[in-house]
Amino acid sequence: MRVHRFILALVVLLSGLSAQAQTDPLPSWNAGPHKQGIIDFVKAVTTPSGPKFVPQEQRIATFDNDGTLWGEMPLYVQLVFALDRVKTLAPQHPEWKTQEPFASLLKGDMKAVMAGGERSLLEILMATHAGMSTAEFEQIVKDWIATAKHPATGRLYTQMVYQPMLELLAYMRANGFKTFIVSGGGVEFMRPWTEKAYGIPPEQVIGSSIKTQFTMKDGKPVLLRLPEVNFIDDKDGKPIGINRIIGRRPIAAFGNSDGDLQMLQWTAGGPGATYCLFVHHDDAVREYAYDKNSEIGKLDLGLTAAAKNGWTLVSMKDDWKVIYPPKP
Amino acid sequence: MRVHRFILALVVLLSGLSAQAQTDPLPSWNAGPHKQGIIDFVKAVTTPSGPKFVPQEQRIATFDNDGTLWGEMPLYVQLVFALDRVKTLAPQHPEWKTQEPFASLLKGDMKAVMAGGERSLLEILMATHAGMSTAEFEQIVKDWIATAKHPATGRLYTQMVYQPMLELLAYMRANGFKTFIVSGGGVEFMRPWTEKAYGIPPEQVIGSSIKTQFTMKDGKPVLLRLPEVNFIDDKDGKPIGINRIIGRRPIAAFGNSDGDLQMLQWTAGGPGATYCLFVHHDDAVREYAYDKNSEIGKLDLGLTAAAKNGWTLVSMKDDWKVIYPPKP
Repeated sequence: MRVHRFILALVVLLSGLSAQAQTDPLPSWNAGPHKQGIIDFVKAVTTPSGPKFVPQEQRIATFDNDGTLWGEMPLYVQLVFALDRVKTLAPQHPEWKTQEPFASLLKGDMKAVMAGGERSLLEILMATHAGMSTAEFEQIVKDWIATAKHPATGRLYTQMVYQPMLELLAYMRANGFKTFIVSGGGVEFMRPWTEKAYGIPPEQVIGSSIKTQFTMKDGKPVLLRLPEVNFIDDKDGKPIGINRIIGRRPIAAFGNSDGDLQMLQWTAGGPGATYCLFVHHDDAVREYAYDKNSEIGKLDLGLTAAAKNGWTLVSMKDDWKVIYPPKP
Repeated sequence: MRVHRFILALVVLLSGLSAQAQTDPLPSWNAGPHKQGIIDFVKAVTTPSGPKFVPQEQRIATFDNDGTLWGEMPLYVQLVFALDRVKTLAPQHPEWKTQEPFASLLKGDMKAVMAGGERSLLEILMATHAGMSTAEFEQIVKDWIATAKHPATGRLYTQMVYQPMLELLAYMRANGFKTFIVSGGGVEFMRPWTEKAYGIPPEQVIGSSIKTQFTMKDGKPVLLRLPEVNFIDDKDGKPIGINRIIGRRPIAAFGNSDGDLQMLQWTAGGPGATYCLFVHHDDAVREYAYDKNSEIGKLDLGLTAAAKNGWTLVSMKDDWKVIYPPKP
């Protein structure tokens, strides 16, 4: 009798697990070839007896961040952070009142700032991202990201992550993939919040970096952030950074702009089954619509390459039921 | 009756597991304060109710490679590899017959090679480590490491890993630590064999690197290895590389030379419980005995720092029952 009940309990338990396994892993994705393509790829590389099986330790998936996992419009979030920092630091820098690009920025004349091109942006980045210890910078980012809100939605930036991509990250991890961020953004700008936002730990975040200096301060070791670029993790830099830091070739790569093209090429060029996907920002109503003619997140060469190579081009408008997670 | 048998089986099973859990995790370490210190630290940071508990995701342990996980005498293994490569490549480089440092090397005059100092070594490294794709270099390393043998022991180099350190790596991983190599050696020289030798996957290997170039070759993307240093992962470079690549501060660090000092300082300077250890090469009979006056693996400042800070100084002679794994 007791054994009977035990077996019954076991049957109930196992059928419960089985029902759970059959739950839609990507509920925010509309049914269709794109959703099915992701599921087919994951099934193919995780089926031990299949011809496309990939051992778990080789299941590396790399994700761009800006525009792929979270929004990048109307400005890259890290740039908003830098502009906010200039305003916060201005009282300590009276010289900025007359010194460009800071003077224009403080007057709110972004057009004049942008006219200075990359050089102006670099100056703003260095003035706001260097000159402190790594621990201090981490705290500055944590404090800012905890309160800064998007101008259009009023959401915290960490609530402007894409719900369908969160599901995709979780689905791939549940199938033995190790998920990495490979972003042009600053690595130390991302690490303080990626674990909570995406479930991606600091050691799986690759990004651009500035140089640091190891030194002793009051008998304690610190790493000082120097105003000097170390590595730009964009375009060619993405496969270079992936090789240098991960040391394995991804079998799946996800991006949204021409800055991700080389990462997808590198991934697609590997042996065995591979999967490449561009997120296409074509939803002017729920998010933004931009590609070839955008300064931010320009997707032009990538569109051609996706069509030529059979990579997935996800339509945010048609493939995604929702853009963001439910409001907290 | 059946239920009785089931419970009995369960009891046997559980007591078996318990006996297993009580098995010595470090059988090649002699009993004493050093072995006990390691076990005490691991217990302290893994006891959830204890004052020194560290959440699993923060249990980062970093290990130097040369002289800490495997031998480095009479020459760094990677240098032996480079010298072998010069001999292999010599027929394709007739100019080396008269060009230093290659001419001396090919004549077997290592003293003359060494007289050229770092510059000579760098030239040898670049001539043997650059000029091919990353995939080609990986294959060259795999082929070499599969057959090259140590001049004194006749063992493959991958059989000259330290058995007590293998046990330590496994013990820490069994307790939720993520184990990383942080070595002055070339990252792409280590990755082809570290997973098999140490259970450390490529993405957890940090090392020195040269620059690479992303390019298309016959329509396929390749990364070409350039004869230009990218990063030297030694001394100050160790905490810098750890911060850049792992992005978390280790709570345990293991080294054997002054090149590891800053990594240990950085680790020891963190908040909460930390553990630092130097392997002291004091076993002239079973391995080599060297410290302050050695060109390779010089341990001088580190000895002072270990004494001052209460770091563990492991005696290979007294603390280790064996040096290498059993002969295969």
